[in-house]
Amino acid sequence: MDTSALATSFGARLPDWVLSELAGVPEVLPTDEDRIRLANRLAERNHREDTGGPFAALVVDSATGRLVSAGVNLVLSSGLSSTHAEVVALSLAQTRLSTWNLGAPGAPELELVVNWRPCVMCYGAAMWSGVRRLLIAGDGPEVEALTGFDEGPMREDWAEQFGERGIRVDRGVLRDEAIEVFREYGAREDAVVYNAR
Amino acid sequence: MDTSALATSFGARLPDWVLSELAGVPEVLPTDEDRIRLANRLAERNHREDTGGPFAALVVDSATGRLVSAGVNLVLSSGLSSTHAEVVALSLAQTRLSTWNLGAPGAPELELVVNWRPCVMCYGAAMWSGVRRLLIAGDGPEVEALTGFDEGPMREDWAEQFGERGIRVDRGVLRDEAIEVFREYGAREDAVVYNAR
Repeated sequence: MDTSALATSFGARLPDWVLSELAGVPEVLPTDEDRIRLANRLAERNHREDTGGPFAALVVDSATGRLVSAGVNLVLSSGLSSTHAEVVALSLAQTRLSTWNLGAPGAPELELVVNWRPCVMCYGAAMWSGVRRLLIAGDGPEVEALTGFDEGPMREDWAEQFGERGIRVDRGVLRDEAIEVFREYGAREDAVVYNAR
Repeated sequence: MDTSALATSFGARLPDWVLSELAGVPEVLPTDEDRIRLANRLAERNHREDTGGPFAALVVDSATGRLVSAGVNLVLSSGLSSTHAEVVALSLAQTRLSTWNLGAPGAPELELVVNWRPCVMCYGAAMWSGVRRLLIAGDGPEVEALTGFDEGPMREDWAEQFGERGIRVDRGVLRDEAIEVFREYGAREDAVVYNAR
């Protein structure tokens, strides 16, 4: 076949406003509240800036609170359906650290911080990334009810399955603030639900 | 914080041998066997070339058999744990077509062809991509048993969940040939299982 029309590479880039926002954030995020607060803020700004859905994720050094990477949902701006906030944050951390394995022996333990429970794709993405902890503002039916997004078919024992693979799950931090961002997004007349069928 | 050390973009690129291999393939792949045969061949060559694990995926126009994109597992070469073959093929198709939605109204129906059932991450990636059909060589315990890779926590009703979202699942095409590739990989003394904990 004529292969000249085939794409041979792909990629995505953070919008400029993310670095501007981060420039005003302290060097370390010591508490769970500090981490979720930043995720909620980036998620809110991402939809207000029209750069994607109301989702953000961070990779953070669990012990020190040092930020390793920050991601926001880039599906609409990158044109790639896999660029959910979690995939973006994990990929940027792996790019910065030059390794696919964020859980290499001897390296500092890293965690993924998200403003809600990951969808089924990002559930797997977190599982294969090497992070040792998932910290989420919350889980439950609110995000699907308020925004129309589909989280996909998760198993009832999703958190236990993380545990069996050495990944701790902690949830319920600034949950109401997270829900407020979803409520604002759902109230927009131009809200795009880019994974509905 | 000082943001200068943060990564702001990420990406991945196919190894050169993929286009060489595809140059010898017919312009269209009319039958399911044609499509799975190519996926099996790319999967085998990917591990023999040491460019990744024994997995490959294609995006194909269901009606005509025209190849839209081809992907192989790039975790080790890209340093990104999300670059499984399915994510690579879907992302390359979306890059070529300049849209995150491979199932836009009026566009030709596209399918994802893979040499085994997707892991839980790629299950979600397929679900959000817009493809209308998943064609796989097979499913079952063989890939985990022969290679040591973890498919992750899938639901029992995984195929029905695709169906509810308008995605047909067909399986059991050149299944033995697919298993033979996994057997060869598992027999390598230097086989890397890059998602095990």
